[in-house]
Amino acid sequence: MPYINIKVTDENLSKEQKQQLIAGATQLLVEVLHKNPEMTHVVIDEVNIDNWGVRGTQYSEIIQAKN
Amino acid sequence: MPYINIKVTDENLSKEQKQQLIAGATQLLVEVLHKNPEMTHVVIDEVNIDNWGVRGTQYSEIIQAKN
Amino acid sequence: MPYINIKVTDENLSKEQKQQLIAGATQLLVEVLHKNPEMTHVVIDEVNIDNWGVRGTQYSEIIQAKN
Amino acid sequence: MPYINIKVTDENLSKEQKQQLIAGATQLLVEVLHKNPEMTHVVIDEVNIDNWGVRGTQYSEIIQAKN
Amino acid sequence: MPYINIKVTDENLSKEQKQQLIAGATQLLVEVLHKNPEMTHVVIDEVNIDNWGVRGTQYSEIIQAKN
Amino acid sequence: MPYINIKVTDENLSKEQKQQLIAGATQLLVEVLHKNPEMTHVVIDEVNIDNWGVRGTQYSEIIQAKN
Repeated sequence: MPYINIKVTDENLSKEQKQQLIAGATQLLVEVLHKNPEMTHVVIDEVNIDNWGVRGTQYSEIIQAKN
Repeated sequence: MPYINIKVTDENLSKEQKQQLIAGATQLLVEVLHKNPEMTHVVIDEVNIDNWGVRGTQYSEIIQAKN
Repeated sequence: MPYINIKVTDENLSKEQKQQLIAGATQLLVEVLHKNPEMTHVVIDEVNIDNWGVRGTQYSEIIQAKN
Repeated sequence: MPYINIKVTDENLSKEQKQQLIAGATQLLVEVLHKNPEMTHVVIDEVNIDNWGVRGTQYSEIIQAKN
Repeated sequence: MPYINIKVTDENLSKEQKQQLIAGATQLLVEVLHKNPEMTHVVIDEVNIDNWGVRGTQYSEIIQAKN
Repeated sequence: MPYINIKVTDENLSKEQKQQLIAGATQLLVEVLHKNPEMTHVVIDEVNIDNWGVRGTQYSEIIQAKN
């Protein structure tokens, strides 16, 4: 009965990319742990780039500094 | 000090339904574990139907296949 | 496809109490949102009383101060 | 490799306040546990005031009752 | 900066299976979203079989009913 | 009503370090967002070093490679 939560920054994921994440994560649990896909739920959270930080800095600022 | 997180697909929950989930989850913790409702927090997350999958398929596609 | 996560302090919950939380949370989602219980997962996390704090104080200290 | 998730009610946090939360949480992990800030991620979730409840009541109702 | 949380029932996962989940989830995010693996964190939670329920029943009871 | 979840690798945190994390995270929310500490909950999760990975590798292996 796996539950997989994928958090990524919100950068215009397409519906197809989300489907690929859901299919891939489910397949991973089936292959590695022989889990039942009927019982495998995947939830994707898209996080605003102002709301995610690493090394103490907002991701929106990290992106801007690169450009 | 319970914390309850309820994740559901985003399908137009009314304010009243949310209130019922909050009241019901709080009451459950009071009844079963005698928790203090002052310390019992409930958070509801509404997840886009493209962002939730089961058996490797997006919920938006599962709904469409049914119709 | 609800997913409910219940976090409580680790204070010797019995197997029966856990079953009551699982049954009650599932029933709540069925009643309020007409969700399919086959798709409703409940996960209970028991948190060490040193690892939960409120008003800036560990729960283990709050308990002790009461006694 | 800390991961810190801060959930607050959605009440018009400014970009600067979010940056302060990210910087402060990262600094806390560096000071207390000597964690590497490069490995320290902070995610802020802003929760609709209808979707958060305490003592069995929606936060939107609690606010209104105060006014 | 993805963060992936995999929750499974606690059924004696080996260190190698955990490594396969970590490597596979990271590769998925690299392939689908071109994420930087340096920034991709995976956390596996193993949940006691008394603490996970579906269709209102503890997983420990579901397993026993099958045997 | 903030809720803060701090996930760190399980490396013998002392009770005092946990108290410092709880006090510091609560103070941060009070200072930046003027939140009520009575309503501010902090939960610390200590994750087994086999269960956390970054760049596709278990943290237990990363530590060993350094030595």
